[in-house]
Amino acid sequence: MPQLRVAMAQVDTTVGDLDGNVAVILDWTRRAAQDGAHLVLFPETAVTGYPVEDLALRTSFVDASRRAVGRLARRLADDGFGDVTVVVGYVDRVGEDARPGAGGPRRLPQNCAAVLHGGRVVARYAKHHLPNYGVFDEYRIFVPGDDLLVVRVRGVDVAVAICEDLWQDGGPVQMAGDAGAGLLAVLNASPYERDKDDVRLELVARRAAEAGCPIAYVNAVGGQDELVFDGDSLVVAAGGTVLARGPQFREALVVTDLDLPAGVTTPGWEEHVQRVTVTAEAVPAYEPRASEVLQPLPDVAEVHGALVLGLRDYVRKNGFRSVVVAVSGGIDSALVASLACDAIGPENVLGISLPSGYSSQHSRDDAEDLANRCGFEYRQYPIAPMVEAFLGTVPLRGVAEENLQARVRGTTIMGIANQEGHLTLATSNKSELAVGYSTLYGDSVGGYAPLKDVPKTLVWELSRWRNAEALSRGEQPPIPENTITKPPSAELRPDQTDQDSLPPYEVLDAILEDYVEGDRGRAEMLEAGFDATVVDSVVTLVDRAEWKRRQFAPGPKISYKAFGRDRRLPITNRWREPAASASLTPPVDVKTDSPLGQD
Amino acid sequence: MPQLRVAMAQVDTTVGDLDGNVAVILDWTRRAAQDGAHLVLFPETAVTGYPVEDLALRTSFVDASRRAVGRLARRLADDGFGDVTVVVGYVDRVGEDARPGAGGPRRLPQNCAAVLHGGRVVARYAKHHLPNYGVFDEYRIFVPGDDLLVVRVRGVDVAVAICEDLWQDGGPVQMAGDAGAGLLAVLNASPYERDKDDVRLELVARRAAEAGCPIAYVNAVGGQDELVFDGDSLVVAAGGTVLARGPQFREALVVTDLDLPAGVTTPGWEEHVQRVTVTAEAVPAYEPRASEVLQPLPDVAEVHGALVLGLRDYVRKNGFRSVVVAVSGGIDSALVASLACDAIGPENVLGISLPSGYSSQHSRDDAEDLANRCGFEYRQYPIAPMVEAFLGTVPLRGVAEENLQARVRGTTIMGIANQEGHLTLATSNKSELAVGYSTLYGDSVGGYAPLKDVPKTLVWELSRWRNAEALSRGEQPPIPENTITKPPSAELRPDQTDQDSLPPYEVLDAILEDYVEGDRGRAEMLEAGFDATVVDSVVTLVDRAEWKRRQFAPGPKISYKAFGRDRRLPITNRWREPAASASLTPPVDVKTDSPLGQD
Repeated sequence: MPQLRVAMAQVDTTVGDLDGNVAVILDWTRRAAQDGAHLVLFPETAVTGYPVEDLALRTSFVDASRRAVGRLARRLADDGFGDVTVVVGYVDRVGEDARPGAGGPRRLPQNCAAVLHGGRVVARYAKHHLPNYGVFDEYRIFVPGDDLLVVRVRGVDVAVAICEDLWQDGGPVQMAGDAGAGLLAVLNASPYERDKDDVRLELVARRAAEAGCPIAYVNAVGGQDELVFDGDSLVVAAGGTVLARGPQFREALVVTDLDLPAGVTTPGWEEHVQRVTVTAEAVPAYEPRASEVLQPLPDVAEVHGALVLGLRDYVRKNGFRSVVVAVSGGIDSALVASLACDAIGPENVLGISLPSGYSSQHSRDDAEDLANRCGFEYRQYPIAPMVEAFLGTVPLRGVAEENLQARVRGTTIMGIANQEGHLTLATSNKSELAVGYSTLYGDSVGGYAPLKDVPKTLVWELSRWRNAEALSRGEQPPIPENTITKPPSAELRPDQTDQDSLPPYEVLDAILEDYVEGDRGRAEMLEAGFDATVVDSVVTLVDRAEWKRRQFAPGPKISYKAFGRDRRLPITNRWREPAASASLTPPVDVKTDSPLGQD
Repeated sequence: MPQLRVAMAQVDTTVGDLDGNVAVILDWTRRAAQDGAHLVLFPETAVTGYPVEDLALRTSFVDASRRAVGRLARRLADDGFGDVTVVVGYVDRVGEDARPGAGGPRRLPQNCAAVLHGGRVVARYAKHHLPNYGVFDEYRIFVPGDDLLVVRVRGVDVAVAICEDLWQDGGPVQMAGDAGAGLLAVLNASPYERDKDDVRLELVARRAAEAGCPIAYVNAVGGQDELVFDGDSLVVAAGGTVLARGPQFREALVVTDLDLPAGVTTPGWEEHVQRVTVTAEAVPAYEPRASEVLQPLPDVAEVHGALVLGLRDYVRKNGFRSVVVAVSGGIDSALVASLACDAIGPENVLGISLPSGYSSQHSRDDAEDLANRCGFEYRQYPIAPMVEAFLGTVPLRGVAEENLQARVRGTTIMGIANQEGHLTLATSNKSELAVGYSTLYGDSVGGYAPLKDVPKTLVWELSRWRNAEALSRGEQPPIPENTITKPPSAELRPDQTDQDSLPPYEVLDAILEDYVEGDRGRAEMLEAGFDATVVDSVVTLVDRAEWKRRQFAPGPKISYKAFGRDRRLPITNRWREPAASASLTPPVDVKTDSPLGQD
């Protein structure tokens, strides 16, 4: 059987940076070629970055993507890698669109893979299945392809598919099996989500069995707005054996030597299979190397990795070099500052303490202790003079006065960020955002919110994990013990704690898990054993806080349903989960499939 | 030929308020019945409000929508209107979804119409064509139907379709023609957009010709987040004659007497046409009444109507009674305050002047003059003490100091809003938002932004139009002449004007029209005669301001591409329109449809 050295390059490209992305792809192809690879696979839309969103609707953008992939092919040949076969994702276009509501006929973009060899684009594949749920909007911006592509590379028939194609029954996977493919190469930009790595492995193994050939699954790496791509590229044999597995949250070349059947053009499917021979002769026999099969990180370590990478890439890709965080002595800002130090180094982190008259001494001490442990620059500006100036002009009291303090802090930190050119990090966590427990334009200010998708209970877990991890490496734990153990408080009035307004965080987070992640109704939550009064108050808070979340900065998605592109709800929305008694009303008289006709 | 009195009820319902919406539908059915209507048509998803967005993915919500429509049918009969046939939009569900990425098999929602008669739901239709472009995400949340519904009402065969079904070639319109329908009833929730009324009329006329029967096109009215539904319901005969046309921007019953062919069950399409006889006997002959055919408003009046309705409904539907506006003496805040007075009455509007040391005397005078003309409460709080307190603590200068003033204003107005329970209106216009000419958490604070989709040149037009309209009614013009004629300035430093930083607004708005609305590339804009330097700087500003727009409040959409659900772009985005020279690079070597295979 012919041999093939397949390199999966799990790279970090940036949306819109076509020249930069081409340079990344050239660089990693060079590394793969020097490592003897015959076939190099890059992620979905690596040339343009993922997701391009409505940029795909700009003719000039699609033109530039097409030009970039042509330029990439020529550069590869010019640099001496023309005999390596490269498969890379980009945006192309096809045909005419006739949807009148979409603005009349026009040529529409496709999510494509290009096969590059000998200085040219020798074949092209368009994704069949366009995901349009959760964070995905591909049906909005792309038209689907319907042909399978099989390229003969060094005598092996390699079928190509893109991401969602693998998640659908039938389609390209089945076609690849019927067409007798020796290898199925799948290009992905599959965002990180807790526990998704297990789901992916299972899926790839099942599809490899269906296709009757190994699958090489290459995934993107890196942060892009709210998405974090985790890499974790895989090669799985038809029998389900994992032949190679790459690292998570970092760029890498995952190289596998495979023995594959010689390509034989199989009859059938001719109308829908495009066959292109790139190189007919098999590789002369060589001694295969063992591949690395890395194990994925444990859960909390994995989340930490996602948060650090998401933060680093948001800072870097948006042209910032440094960040500023308001450190209160509390756990949220401590974890954010620690993540920032891990992401971009403490020398690029500025912590500002903004104590008020209600701030306890332990808060100031804990904030300073954090700065010392982490090694970032620390400044303190008491907010009393500004708060007093406001109160001298406008008589505010109660919640309005509490919010005033938060907004004076927000204004101060934004002033420093503007003056010195830092990106402001917001410190709100997912539990707070869910119930709207934050001050708009106050503690919620910032261009990026590392904990946006991290519930409060997980904030504590991550902090403890990070400290333990430091100890295990013989380093000082970054987060002060007192910050972890003290009761959480916004300190906007004397002796305030979060639990004056909210249920205990373990209860709150469990309800949020059911309501937000699970889309469960009130009746189901009561069945699950939650207290009705608590459920009602939490659900009402969540529904009412949508307007506030809309004005909040992006943050890295780590759950199935983050408060971002995953969950799109109206602001003007009078829907409230029906009380349990509503489920006792008479059965509906609308039958789903058989209306009660009188004909 | 049988006669039929058809009432189109263009009503304003609220997303999620199922009980309230059922009450609205009952009320308007009663009015229609009292007016002798035999068939009453309500808009698309009138029972749930439109758009429900991801609420459709909650089982409890879809259950509640199904129960509500059943309850509505019973209530109609109980109230004595069981012999009237009512067609109303709601959300139902059907079948199983097998998209694994979407979270495993589950029952999926449909965008439906229910036919109510005799206390029951007698038939159901599911929308075929699900728009998923612009502001629409229906492919994300609904599954399409594929059957046509024809109900025999008083001896006439009435086919039912929903909104996008009409915009697509073939589909339900053609099926209705083939099935011999005597009338095609189309339920819509079609958002307002400048000049769209002409497009709709043309479309309805063309489809009526294709179906070979009149079309009754009923559209929703009201504001829902960024969408404003304008009503403008229509009946158009097969020959293209407009038989009835309703008002814009207000609820109304549009009643038409039609002579229609007696229903005859036509062969063909049996498998895809569901026929239900509601009432077989024709109505006894009666004297038909003439219908009203209203003319749509002129362009600027129409925009004004959309802004007023959008603002009124946002305030009302979100449970507010009053608004606060920072009035600077400038044109944007003057127009916002005037719109607010038109929408909810001057007694519910509070104007706050927040002068700084850089504020001119004419600014203070103009703000006070505005308040006197409009009749809203006016207060003044100088911001110098707060600004000085900040500068005494944190040494800010330059742009950071300019932004500080804006943020002190934002903090003050939000404090008053919190204390007194007003909704804060943001005053930024579309031109500023486009280029990021605003201070985040400063002048951009607010829960609703009436001018979000209004370019600066249109702000002036609207102000002049509103003043002229007042004069024509013998009233005092609300906006001071000096506010309209003086050069625009943020007054954040001495002698500042907007044109220190921006091109003249006529030029800016023309470029934005091409780039934002038209998605045109740099090369096309240069061809259109714009200066390259100006285009480059505007386009760069627009691309870079995406992060800022994301944290901005909703506002009413009046253009083809508002900065909201219509235009979805990444924040982390290094794409810049290619310089003109890039269009001179060698032709691309990727052919669209025929890759250069070597097979």
